[in-house]
Amino acid sequence: MDAHLIDSAVYGHGWSTSESRSIFSERARLHRWVRVLKALAVAQAEAQIIPDTSARAIEHLDADLLDPTAMGTETRRTSHSALGLVSGLQAQLPAEAREHVYYGATVQDVSDTAAALEMRDVGGIVWRDLRAVENSVLELAERHRNTPMLGRTHGQPGAPVTFGLKAASWADETARHLERWRQSRGRVVVGQLAGAVGALGFYGDAGPGLRGRFCEILGLGEPAVSWTGARDRIAEFASNSALVSATMARMANEVYNLQRREIAEAAETASESTVGSFTMPHKRNPERSEQVVTLARLVRSAAGVLTETMVGDYERDGRTWKTEWVLLPELGHYLLAQLSLARGLSDSIEVDAAAMTRNLETAGDFGSQELLKRMSARLGKHRANDELQRAFRRARENRQPLVEALQGVAAPSELEGLDQPATGAAATMVDAVIAAAARRRADETDDWL
Amino acid sequence: MDAHLIDSAVYGHGWSTSESRSIFSERARLHRWVRVLKALAVAQAEAQIIPDTSARAIEHLDADLLDPTAMGTETRRTSHSALGLVSGLQAQLPAEAREHVYYGATVQDVSDTAAALEMRDVGGIVWRDLRAVENSVLELAERHRNTPMLGRTHGQPGAPVTFGLKAASWADETARHLERWRQSRGRVVVGQLAGAVGALGFYGDAGPGLRGRFCEILGLGEPAVSWTGARDRIAEFASNSALVSATMARMANEVYNLQRREIAEAAETASESTVGSFTMPHKRNPERSEQVVTLARLVRSAAGVLTETMVGDYERDGRTWKTEWVLLPELGHYLLAQLSLARGLSDSIEVDAAAMTRNLETAGDFGSQELLKRMSARLGKHRANDELQRAFRRARENRQPLVEALQGVAAPSELEGLDQPATGAAATMVDAVIAAAARRRADETDDWL
Amino acid sequence: MDAHLIDSAVYGHGWSTSESRSIFSERARLHRWVRVLKALAVAQAEAQIIPDTSARAIEHLDADLLDPTAMGTETRRTSHSALGLVSGLQAQLPAEAREHVYYGATVQDVSDTAAALEMRDVGGIVWRDLRAVENSVLELAERHRNTPMLGRTHGQPGAPVTFGLKAASWADETARHLERWRQSRGRVVVGQLAGAVGALGFYGDAGPGLRGRFCEILGLGEPAVSWTGARDRIAEFASNSALVSATMARMANEVYNLQRREIAEAAETASESTVGSFTMPHKRNPERSEQVVTLARLVRSAAGVLTETMVGDYERDGRTWKTEWVLLPELGHYLLAQLSLARGLSDSIEVDAAAMTRNLETAGDFGSQELLKRMSARLGKHRANDELQRAFRRARENRQPLVEALQGVAAPSELEGLDQPATGAAATMVDAVIAAAARRRADETDDWL
Amino acid sequence: MDAHLIDSAVYGHGWSTSESRSIFSERARLHRWVRVLKALAVAQAEAQIIPDTSARAIEHLDADLLDPTAMGTETRRTSHSALGLVSGLQAQLPAEAREHVYYGATVQDVSDTAAALEMRDVGGIVWRDLRAVENSVLELAERHRNTPMLGRTHGQPGAPVTFGLKAASWADETARHLERWRQSRGRVVVGQLAGAVGALGFYGDAGPGLRGRFCEILGLGEPAVSWTGARDRIAEFASNSALVSATMARMANEVYNLQRREIAEAAETASESTVGSFTMPHKRNPERSEQVVTLARLVRSAAGVLTETMVGDYERDGRTWKTEWVLLPELGHYLLAQLSLARGLSDSIEVDAAAMTRNLETAGDFGSQELLKRMSARLGKHRANDELQRAFRRARENRQPLVEALQGVAAPSELEGLDQPATGAAATMVDAVIAAAARRRADETDDWL
Repeated sequence: MDAHLIDSAVYGHGWSTSESRSIFSERARLHRWVRVLKALAVAQAEAQIIPDTSARAIEHLDADLLDPTAMGTETRRTSHSALGLVSGLQAQLPAEAREHVYYGATVQDVSDTAAALEMRDVGGIVWRDLRAVENSVLELAERHRNTPMLGRTHGQPGAPVTFGLKAASWADETARHLERWRQSRGRVVVGQLAGAVGALGFYGDAGPGLRGRFCEILGLGEPAVSWTGARDRIAEFASNSALVSATMARMANEVYNLQRREIAEAAETASESTVGSFTMPHKRNPERSEQVVTLARLVRSAAGVLTETMVGDYERDGRTWKTEWVLLPELGHYLLAQLSLARGLSDSIEVDAAAMTRNLETAGDFGSQELLKRMSARLGKHRANDELQRAFRRARENRQPLVEALQGVAAPSELEGLDQPATGAAATMVDAVIAAAARRRADETDDWL
Repeated sequence: MDAHLIDSAVYGHGWSTSESRSIFSERARLHRWVRVLKALAVAQAEAQIIPDTSARAIEHLDADLLDPTAMGTETRRTSHSALGLVSGLQAQLPAEAREHVYYGATVQDVSDTAAALEMRDVGGIVWRDLRAVENSVLELAERHRNTPMLGRTHGQPGAPVTFGLKAASWADETARHLERWRQSRGRVVVGQLAGAVGALGFYGDAGPGLRGRFCEILGLGEPAVSWTGARDRIAEFASNSALVSATMARMANEVYNLQRREIAEAAETASESTVGSFTMPHKRNPERSEQVVTLARLVRSAAGVLTETMVGDYERDGRTWKTEWVLLPELGHYLLAQLSLARGLSDSIEVDAAAMTRNLETAGDFGSQELLKRMSARLGKHRANDELQRAFRRARENRQPLVEALQGVAAPSELEGLDQPATGAAATMVDAVIAAAARRRADETDDWL
Repeated sequence: MDAHLIDSAVYGHGWSTSESRSIFSERARLHRWVRVLKALAVAQAEAQIIPDTSARAIEHLDADLLDPTAMGTETRRTSHSALGLVSGLQAQLPAEAREHVYYGATVQDVSDTAAALEMRDVGGIVWRDLRAVENSVLELAERHRNTPMLGRTHGQPGAPVTFGLKAASWADETARHLERWRQSRGRVVVGQLAGAVGALGFYGDAGPGLRGRFCEILGLGEPAVSWTGARDRIAEFASNSALVSATMARMANEVYNLQRREIAEAAETASESTVGSFTMPHKRNPERSEQVVTLARLVRSAAGVLTETMVGDYERDGRTWKTEWVLLPELGHYLLAQLSLARGLSDSIEVDAAAMTRNLETAGDFGSQELLKRMSARLGKHRANDELQRAFRRARENRQPLVEALQGVAAPSELEGLDQPATGAAATMVDAVIAAAARRRADETDDWL
Repeated sequence: MDAHLIDSAVYGHGWSTSESRSIFSERARLHRWVRVLKALAVAQAEAQIIPDTSARAIEHLDADLLDPTAMGTETRRTSHSALGLVSGLQAQLPAEAREHVYYGATVQDVSDTAAALEMRDVGGIVWRDLRAVENSVLELAERHRNTPMLGRTHGQPGAPVTFGLKAASWADETARHLERWRQSRGRVVVGQLAGAVGALGFYGDAGPGLRGRFCEILGLGEPAVSWTGARDRIAEFASNSALVSATMARMANEVYNLQRREIAEAAETASESTVGSFTMPHKRNPERSEQVVTLARLVRSAAGVLTETMVGDYERDGRTWKTEWVLLPELGHYLLAQLSLARGLSDSIEVDAAAMTRNLETAGDFGSQELLKRMSARLGKHRANDELQRAFRRARENRQPLVEALQGVAAPSELEGLDQPATGAAATMVDAVIAAAARRRADETDDWL
């Protein structure tokens, strides 16, 4: 079906990526569940819980042969979320192995372990994409280390910064995400074999050993205790995703703002074939930047619910667990779509240094901080500020040229060279960010480990 | 694709309904958009903006012939969300009509108008389903008008109520939703023809008349002013949906609670073929009630974002508008899935009056309010409460029979008949709710109007 | 104490108003609760549940004599939220009346009824302020009915609108809020007398009559059935508040955007004494507009939680009810602070029509829709758009004057007069909004009724 | 003022603690800001930016002498958030030092640095309280390592667990929070000295050195680059707080559930003086557990907004930054109030092992998993489950004794000893959690470092 926009052939690409779809498609989910069941069978055979022959047969199960439609019918008939799967798998097995698939495990064992695999897959891509974004913005920081532009606060032109400083701030924030991401992995990529209520009762004394081997086969961490009721692992993944995506949105929002044609200092690159508008042929819209902002809202919203559902009843709460079934994939799609757009954005931002200079000149008053500094030496900082506030207000209200309004306020020497943007420690900070990233990278793997 | 759980052949039914999928499938969206474009062409021909012959040709467009995959390719190539559609439609048109499809309208005209149609469709089902739920719980209220059971507060058994009172509370809350729903329709089911920036500039003086006719053809209300930047219509629909779904969740949560086997006073009906658990064959889980609670979270979360996106820039903000593209359908699926489950739940709750009586008896102390009332006449209310609090604490701590603990505290006559649950004004309130519903219904249509 | 920013002598005014503080101060809460208890006593005396003399004594209770600190001690000692109040009141009463205060009512009766009074008070101010905002923006709409300015979409200059159209869109949205607000009053301003578990058991047959009179005395609606577990009344109030505040934020966000110095078409008025910045004396920040946007987030967030808590257990759920204790006042403060700012903003927006014209001229290409329209007649709409897209891209990439880039694309006659902004149906829409408001007003009271 | 419930003398204790109030009171905020300004002056004197004598005078400033009311007046007059403070401080300074307080710094420098100090203070208490909770639940885990009770899923009794397993799951989750908390400190406890727009322009080349010393004096980390626009530090603190508080709520929710009188296996301890209800003297309400759940919602909601506000404009966005002013303290109050309650709860949960056993016996069918396991050996797992599901349904529908219903289904030997709760690997998992905590503790400091 294609009743969710993610699954639309026309629009799905804005809300998911081919990678996210390959992780979360129905077929991929079947493959993942079957992979978990195979690992379970192998571990069970090793622990002599089921016969070797059965495990070998189970290892040959082919998820491609499963019929989702038939499984759906069975699911609806029984209201049980895995009976359809079991029937489908049993049909592929020799009679003597049929009872050994999905042996003693509960649905949550399989779905939680599958969730860990999903988080590993999504998380690995996030790791890769975040590093790519970091690369791009570090490069921007370096390239524009000394490119002056208006700093702006409260939406208003202020003192000068450099574009490099802006990019360095993105890089620094991204670096913190990479740190968070790395630190969280051990908590997030963890298997589940808990049985009915978490005590692994079905397997008696063999339980803990079985669980260890099961996780090992899948390359997952082993929990100290069942986490059927403890959903912080997933909530942490979601929260960190929300933080990551907010940073990408901050960057995209900045591009959206700088691309305002009244500012026009930076822009997202549009390909030749891009069509801006149906009714205003002159338009060039920052649609990808917009979409990055949009997706951040969706990721954050999913993360909020996934934190809410940490609070459940007892050893398993369907109201919690099933929410994850729908929101973890949703979050994965939105996050990967966003990162893909953010990568494209960050490595192709068009920076117009000439426009930046032009805007500095047009503003004219970007040197007010520098002037304040100079006058502070003479008048004191607060008194100088008072006088300057008054002068600037005068200029504004009387539409008076600044030079005129400042006459008698600032000494001629204090006004000298104010038209040269002083960007303070911007370059030093850029260098610090680049150096910190290099140090961190030296100790970092390409894969999310 | 089937990368969102809504589109899963195996699990989609828990998160959507066949009705919601028929509203929001890709093909249905294409049909809806084409329907809007046909209305536009007809109105434009009437206003002599395009030739009659073109309008007639456009009226014969067949959305079933559109190829979503090709449209997707074109959408990705151009980054324009409707170019794929236009190409596909033009291919069906004679040369002379090709330029007259999607004439002068902007994408938001079509997508907002389509959103209004979606809200009309979803809203109509909500109206129907809410009334069905109201019917069921009114019937429960009447049937159990005098069925005594423990009232409970703070999770603890308290004084008696009737099950009818509980159902009446659901009915009363549902009635308020129906009132809200009716009142909102005129604000929600409204078309959009705004053009590039809301001023309808493309059509000159013909604009307002064209818009009126366009809305009329589609059976939609006409706005006084373009609402490209004013998204409260959609946010209201979403907020009201969140309120509705929270009420359904309250009811389902109550069933979940009453179905706790330690209470067992009510339960959702399970069909013969329901399978409870893979590892605990004795289990009977309130899975549908759980799902109703789960879905309320998702609807509320979508409503929150749709309120957030009311705040956008200027005449159109892609960050707002595109969020709606994904969330309005999502909300529709979750809401309709929930209402469908809630209907099934409300008309099949198994009420175990005997268990209710048994629990009253087991509790033993449900008469404490009645006793307080009686002793208040003698001692004063606060003094009586003091003494009773002490007595009950004594009984609890010493595991003393209540009768014993109350000796010397309550007079024998005060204790008389305390084992008969006094349900106060419960029946009166049930009657009031039933009467109010009847009055409202007398003035109500079966369709959402 | 002053540990919340609302209670800060320095900063509280940004997050509350003197009105909101007079509604929600501790002393006001005590007065309200006492007022509710007086109404209860009067109604109980009329129903001969307590002696007339006691009711008269209770009517003379003075909330100003209550000692919050002592009440706090008692509250902490007993973990009961009203015992401190009762002790304090009893100390003011003659011995024979002491037992008749708070007689048979539960804490929720008093606090829910007080919540209804709070919503009536806050709601009345919202009504007044929303109408004042509507007045201001209607006046703006009328005054700037024909003031042309750039329309903008996706953050980019587009075709022309008028500032009046923008203001009309705010007015129209505000009008819908007024409609919602009026429709909701009967559901929201409703008393509660439910007793222990909602069945009014304490009062026997006298319950319903007592409740009716109790609500009447307080000027509140009477519910058909106890709403201890049905919290949609409060959630509706909160949701509607969130919608209202999002609209105010949209307007303020627009001012923030138009005040960007690169645009400078409108601005909030700053008083003489306003100081913009400590370090950049030239700055003039749209701080009030920012604060309006900020407050909308807080109102929305409170509304989300108040919808979440609609789902509770049984006849009373402390987890729901106590959340309201903190969030309903919080929402009230933020909403009233926001509306107060929004009023100030809406009636003092400085519109710079000359700047609007200048920006139209600078943009130069605002006529692209008009040109598209003209060329459509010759070439067909889609073909014309294609050609124009190409021409504009060319102009952009080659930094070519537009006239040059359009040579051979547009006919000279098609280019004629394009420098005159055509604002389409903007004025008509303004008129429609003004007329609709006038019609609605004719049928509307100054108070929220 | 006391217009927020946190500041109520009567109710404030439920929403804040004396610690949180001592961190966030107006006076404490003044002290903190002054402390930051002193550090700035000292560092500036060392860097010869201001005279030593001025720095010494500034070091003697006394925040206790500041008059918040006067500051408020000044704040409202100037719309500037620090002018009142500066005036107040200047009044305490000799003329020659007056210009050197708050020298060249912007308001955000002070408020962000103060926020870091707040997070350090709140975070340190969280660290302490979380460890105390961990201690308590580890002790519970150990003490009840072998105390059998019903496991429950979907609200329904299932197979047995031990209470120790439940407590171990809380401990394990808490341990992960401690890990997160420790890892985040370096990102969170970081000062800010950014100047007007982040480039530290006011100080020229002296900026970076000045910033380093400033942070050092305050014991804060130094950022690589200004974080005026990068708010992930605060959002991370908030997100982690939301996760922590959700875990506390899960534990409290479990107590609320186990305290249901129909279950009565555990309860929060009520002191002698606790009064349960005004109208139902027998009630014993889990009010503290409820409050813990309530507070989690408020913390989560604040965290959501603090993540939302990560997306802002340019170098400073008042809409973001001011939101933090109100929400970071709010979150601090709620979080500390919650942890205080959670500590009290965790170290005084009354566990009723006898009731647990009784409930196991009453349930009767807790051995269904064990029986399934045994029958699986004979019949195969899925077939055994089928037969058992049928038998249990039969028993339920015919209200047939289980033994009877199982006749012919299970072999007599399979039924042997089923009345002994088999708790599988519960004890092993408890041990693993205890051991892991011990290992972690060995490497951990008592303070949050």
